[in-house]
Amino acid sequence: MEKIEFRNFEKRKRANFVNSLSGFKSANLIATKSREGVTNLAIFSSAVHIGADPALVALVFRPDSVPRDTLSNIRETKVATLNHVHKNIYKQAHQTSARYKEGESEFEKTGLTEEYKDNFAVPFVGESRLKYSLELKKEINLEINNTHFLIFEIMDVYLEPENILDQGQINLEACGSITVSSLNGYHETHLLERLSYAKP
Amino acid sequence: MEKIEFRNFEKRKRANFVNSLSGFKSANLIATKSREGVTNLAIFSSAVHIGADPALVALVFRPDSVPRDTLSNIRETKVATLNHVHKNIYKQAHQTSARYKEGESEFEKTGLTEEYKDNFAVPFVGESRLKYSLELKKEINLEINNTHFLIFEIMDVYLEPENILDQGQINLEACGSITVSSLNGYHETHLLERLSYAKP
Repeated sequence: MEKIEFRNFEKRKRANFVNSLSGFKSANLIATKSREGVTNLAIFSSAVHIGADPALVALVFRPDSVPRDTLSNIRETKVATLNHVHKNIYKQAHQTSARYKEGESEFEKTGLTEEYKDNFAVPFVGESRLKYSLELKKEINLEINNTHFLIFEIMDVYLEPENILDQGQINLEACGSITVSSLNGYHETHLLERLSYAKP
Repeated sequence: MEKIEFRNFEKRKRANFVNSLSGFKSANLIATKSREGVTNLAIFSSAVHIGADPALVALVFRPDSVPRDTLSNIRETKVATLNHVHKNIYKQAHQTSARYKEGESEFEKTGLTEEYKDNFAVPFVGESRLKYSLELKKEINLEINNTHFLIFEIMDVYLEPENILDQGQINLEACGSITVSSLNGYHETHLLERLSYAKP
């Protein structure tokens, strides 16, 4: 095992390396809608659990030195939907990261389906098998590198009830959910074991 | 697909459910050392990539209404190590979540090996195949639920160089790294595909 001098890597190589270091990440599509009614869809691997009661999840956004449709839509409307990426839509999910023009919807460009539910203002991804609506509660600007940490309350959650285990865990594999490494690796999973609550 | 009334779930069931919603998570062992020299080891699934230059990673800590050895050690010493959990140590990694007494080291209790490297003050996990030292840069208290968001700079990174791909990504599967669902599900992964940079 060696110490890796990653600070000498060329810029993109360094980004790919450091993006690998936290480990496997979630794969989620965040849908938003501008005040003008243009929908937007973007893949995020930075979702992090913040708490169960209230039910909170956070996302990290890159610096807004260039226009960021997802971030500006959320600042305007305070709402979004989070949709798990599954095995059959990961290529379309990755394609949402292309730089489309303002006014173009990634739903249309990638062929993913806008699905409106229970009068929520922003569509869900019809193909996703685990999805929920979000309300923005707090934005924190991380001055250390000008990224943005947004905390959301989880509102309405949709999935097949048979994918919920007796103790409340969701069987993510049954929902087809996948995991991401670095910026472009897509992986399916196989359960090794569910362990019981640890005692000394 | 149904709307799930998870707010009516019993407390632990609700926690298991909401902890599943962000998707697959990383599995990392955080090692720290108190000023008195007692080492501590704890499993975390909340590591999140913050940036590549400077190289930053953050962790979410639960409220410190009860003593939290990892958090108090980091506040005292400003340093820690992050060690990826792999297939052969996930049971020991999970066992670190048991409530051992203050003054007891989870290294000793779980049989994982303290490994000191390059004069860093805190040990690494000898068994881990991808690990790095951390320096605390910023603590943010999330008032919404009294959790703590700590941002660290990634200092020295150790792994086998042959597990770094040409473009800089780390082959996490070759390092044995696994992924976690909810609070107790441990999963291995299989690569579906690495996709190229998306263009419109």
